[in-house]
Amino acid sequence: MRHIHVIGIGAGDPDYVTAQAVSALNHTQVFFAMDKGPRRGTDTDELVALRRAICERFITHAPGEPGYRFVELVDPPRATTGEYTSAVADWHAERAKIWAQAIETELGPDGVGAFLAWGDPSLYDSTLRILDRVAEHVEFDYDVIPGITAVQALTARHRIPLNDIGEPVLITTGRRLRDEGISGTAVVMLDAECSFQECPQQTRIWWGAYLGTPDEILFAGRVGEVGEQIVAARAEARERHGWIMDTYLLRSAD
Amino acid sequence: MRHIHVIGIGAGDPDYVTAQAVSALNHTQVFFAMDKGPRRGTDTDELVALRRAICERFITHAPGEPGYRFVELVDPPRATTGEYTSAVADWHAERAKIWAQAIETELGPDGVGAFLAWGDPSLYDSTLRILDRVAEHVEFDYDVIPGITAVQALTARHRIPLNDIGEPVLITTGRRLRDEGISGTAVVMLDAECSFQECPQQTRIWWGAYLGTPDEILFAGRVGEVGEQIVAARAEARERHGWIMDTYLLRSAD
Repeated sequence: MRHIHVIGIGAGDPDYVTAQAVSALNHTQVFFAMDKGPRRGTDTDELVALRRAICERFITHAPGEPGYRFVELVDPPRATTGEYTSAVADWHAERAKIWAQAIETELGPDGVGAFLAWGDPSLYDSTLRILDRVAEHVEFDYDVIPGITAVQALTARHRIPLNDIGEPVLITTGRRLRDEGISGTAVVMLDAECSFQECPQQTRIWWGAYLGTPDEILFAGRVGEVGEQIVAARAEARERHGWIMDTYLLRSAD
Repeated sequence: MRHIHVIGIGAGDPDYVTAQAVSALNHTQVFFAMDKGPRRGTDTDELVALRRAICERFITHAPGEPGYRFVELVDPPRATTGEYTSAVADWHAERAKIWAQAIETELGPDGVGAFLAWGDPSLYDSTLRILDRVAEHVEFDYDVIPGITAVQALTARHRIPLNDIGEPVLITTGRRLRDEGISGTAVVMLDAECSFQECPQQTRIWWGAYLGTPDEILFAGRVGEVGEQIVAARAEARERHGWIMDTYLLRSAD
């Protein structure tokens, strides 16, 4: 049967790749790629290059063995009107059809393909949801290979614990943070709007962008002290790179 | 200056070790180890063996190069009476003194030591908090190397997304779950009491123990369907191994 690896390749630094991912990369014949990047409509050449660099560094086929190739998947347009969850579901269904056709035509009956996910395939990534729907169209088996998330890269680079002793941690989105505010520890992802600005000034923040890459930017302090600096640095970096991936940890003031 | 690596070695499977961790392992002269295991008073020979197996597999010193050694740190007793957070703080202070002395006596002025953390050093692990206090006694620099957490091993082995689309995820403890109940998605760690039993019967659960090891056990279903099976399997496995590490993801019924 066809086999698909869903491989978490970590958050930025190629050194975040695990031994398990290296093994899966080396057993893959076809890498299926959607190069839409973390923010729609942005320049993602750097991300494409980073992904190819990971393949080149870790794939060590012996001379004479067959190599690997990339197959680009066209990304269907996503409805920008209507209810968010159902728009996403429709878009996943459209993608599933395109993926199913690619798997069927590009992989032989015992072929091995892979999808590479930034960070970990379980966290704010749609690959697993779409594959669930691909299974309606074509038969295949798959496994999931975890990767270092941006959350872990953030805490490692700031050298901080994620949780307070015995306390919970909320992983959430900018949208949710704006709606619900901060209580205890929260990690915020998918926030293009610097939503931390609406938190109390005494809230502590550890922020990072391009984590694990040579372009990494880190800030830590109280929202009231470093908030404006973060907003300015983020806007400048996004303009310069054409894209940005950032995340941050908040702890409400005691 | 002395340097300390705090290395996340992943949750169980040696293949979860990252390239960055492999590099740090190979640059370490002294591994400081506290062999107390995940639950106090349990038999942790298997965990010690697993950690040594990771070192043996990934450390590849060239012939003639100096090797590495393990230094066992005595674990001070922890107060079992009084307020939890202050008991933990006192215990950290005691450990910090022991660690500081070991770093001072076992590492030369430019020596490199390491602490290995199961999973990721940021998540329900005390190494970073204790090192903060070690710095009161001895001078050293340190870095943090992220590792695959049990949360990621759990979702990978069950092949599920952590979050619902655009929704938050709470990482919490058994104690908190019992006090606060379940709403949306929660990952529960540090739960020796199968606290999911107090959740509504329709709550969905994905449970895993000894994740990533040959002894891995997985269950998935509704609490009302698989809850009792999990309780029984957990008790039997804990008895047989002398210890257990387990974690689970809950989603409240829609």
